Amino acid sequence: MQNVSIIGVGQTPVGEHWELSLRHLALQAVQAALDNAGLNKVDAIIVGNALGGVISNQNHLGALVTDFAGMRGTEAFRVEAADASGGVALRQGYLMVASGMAQTVMVLGVEKVTDLIGSQRQTAMASFLDAEYEAAHGATPVALAALLMRRYMHEYGVQVADFANFSVNAHANGSKNANAMYRNLIRAERFSSAPLVADPVNLFDVAPEADGAAAVILTSAERAADLVPHPVRILASAVGTDALAVHDRPDPLCLMAASLSAQRAYEQASIGPADVDLLELHDSSTIMAALSLEACGFADRGEGWRLATDNRIGTKGSIPISTFGGLKSRGNPFGATGVYQAVEVVLQLRGEAGENQIEGAQIGMTQNLGGLGGTAVTHLFGR
Amino acid sequence: MQNVSIIGVGQTPVGEHWELSLRHLALQAVQAALDNAGLNKVDAIIVGNALGGVISNQNHLGALVTDFAGMRGTEAFRVEAADASGGVALRQGYLMVASGMAQTVMVLGVEKVTDLIGSQRQTAMASFLDAEYEAAHGATPVALAALLMRRYMHEYGVQVADFANFSVNAHANGSKNANAMYRNLIRAERFSSAPLVADPVNLFDVAPEADGAAAVILTSAERAADLVPHPVRILASAVGTDALAVHDRPDPLCLMAASLSAQRAYEQASIGPADVDLLELHDSSTIMAALSLEACGFADRGEGWRLATDNRIGTKGSIPISTFGGLKSRGNPFGATGVYQAVEVVLQLRGEAGENQIEGAQIGMTQNLGGLGGTAVTHLFGR
Repeated sequence: MQNVSIIGVGQTPVGEHWELSLRHLALQAVQAALDNAGLNKVDAIIVGNALGGVISNQNHLGALVTDFAGMRGTEAFRVEAADASGGVALRQGYLMVASGMAQTVMVLGVEKVTDLIGSQRQTAMASFLDAEYEAAHGATPVALAALLMRRYMHEYGVQVADFANFSVNAHANGSKNANAMYRNLIRAERFSSAPLVADPVNLFDVAPEADGAAAVILTSAERAADLVPHPVRILASAVGTDALAVHDRPDPLCLMAASLSAQRAYEQASIGPADVDLLELHDSSTIMAALSLEACGFADRGEGWRLATDNRIGTKGSIPISTFGGLKSRGNPFGATGVYQAVEVVLQLRGEAGENQIEGAQIGMTQNLGGLGGTAVTHLFGR
Repeated sequence: MQNVSIIGVGQTPVGEHWELSLRHLALQAVQAALDNAGLNKVDAIIVGNALGGVISNQNHLGALVTDFAGMRGTEAFRVEAADASGGVALRQGYLMVASGMAQTVMVLGVEKVTDLIGSQRQTAMASFLDAEYEAAHGATPVALAALLMRRYMHEYGVQVADFANFSVNAHANGSKNANAMYRNLIRAERFSSAPLVADPVNLFDVAPEADGAAAVILTSAERAADLVPHPVRILASAVGTDALAVHDRPDPLCLMAASLSAQRAYEQASIGPADVDLLELHDSSTIMAALSLEACGFADRGEGWRLATDNRIGTKGSIPISTFGGLKSRGNPFGATGVYQAVEVVLQLRGEAGENQIEGAQIGMTQNLGGLGGTAVTHLFGR
């Protein structure tokens, strides 16, 4: 197997792109990544997208985007694992280069969510859950997150206010990211009284669904060194799964897929959590951030929330998270989210993160979850 | 890169499985393939599925199917390229084993189509096309096939009756396949007068959409030799794309994606069309069969139909196609179709094809198309 490096990144602002269709949104990220790598084509394009078929009646995005980007004929296809689609796409691009089957591969995440509103959007998002045993009873992702949060508060004697700093930190970082959807600051003392979405999850707690596209370009580490000044090495790539239905999990507060994929990644790279300088995690709600930190070994069971209250997740903390705003402030464009995470870690490791820079970052980690953690994808990156 | 072999295959009958949901249908194929390989688990499951999100409001099938099959935690995800999803899934499974990243991988194709009928089903299928420039104007896959067929007849002076033997052959072969959806025979003289679907494509011409699931299990060629008596080697794996919208193609009667992926596959295996003993092609309508044969080098431009009229596509012909009935008689369960093709070629190369056996088959080929050929996946297999 060949070592794999990232030589180009691109992203659109995350937000409500009513003036752009899926293909136009995708094109912006594709073009930006090609420009960043100094290339004009690649050998294959892997598209991460969750809801194109459901929202835009547009499946078959691999061929569509590839043609629209001027690369007609090039190998392309779409991968999907709910809002872990982008992470899984990165895994596939990695395999393609690692196997020697392709020299240069683009991994593109793209999602157009805001064409649906209200209950229609919730129905589309419910396709990430178990359709027959969860969605059929009216469950939505945020409703299930609320059940997990309530259970966590009960088990560990934690209050809603104890989760506040996850969002405060995310917005503080996102306020400095020109591509973030919500750049306002959140005050900790206002957190607990924000309007409820699904009790106890509130508006300041849950990440916004959004439109966006992000892309990275991969090639062999050997070739990368000749092409760009600061390639970023992919040290590990791993996927884990869990029961899709939360009620089928014997221990719902343990994100098994997240734990498995993190362990697999640590083993591949022969490192542990203490070696990680920053983590882009899947903070679709604050409870998911806390559970992810525990699953990845940054905190013991029931202790993840303390990383927030102690502000160890801040840019100068022991494990900075959501350094460009995370899902909460940058936004959650489902199938693109995992690729945004990779773009952000690459910028950090290149030292190009501007006001969001984590000083001295050497090893970065991303963890992208699908739904309530039915799928988890973990990647480790090094300078 | 490691050489890759298939050590297990499984399939459900293709048809209208109203009593089974997506997961139950999938489980039958998963279990059959595991039994066939003598295994009880694999390292990863790649799911090919086109319309789970649209038809069953069920995305995130990788985790769902893996858990339901008793392999909770195992790496899994879904890939999609319209009705080439199964072929692309096989490509991904191949890469995973070839790269050494996984030892044993299951590639599963599953589709539940018949829960939608009439215009709802046509709308779902239209997501395989360019949503904004084809589907928005009412085009459906069969309507576009009709335009291609009309153009072909005009360009080459061919009549509807000249396509009859594609369907006659498919049904003759399918009549001996217990898993085929339509096992009736078609008489050539009745072909031209069958009820029209989209003039000139008629009921005897177009393949039925259907429910079904099929699975294959891959491992390294070295390990395969220790596990099963007759492993089948994957000699080549290639994907090509084309403009999704047919009107964007400068030469619509040339299936560029099909041609590109076939050329890439021939190069990988260092063989040519003359070396191929049987071809499972994407006969979603007879015109697609004729164009595929031309794109793959089995006939010159405008001559593909002659392979049917001369019956060179029959079981004793120079290039047998649709040996278990093809899409026309076995049925087209979109995301599963590419995996059915692989299962059928494996049975042929093992000499386990029963009444459908092609004598002395050494090299088999599959070509799976997405939509009107926006994506094409070609695999070559050897004993």
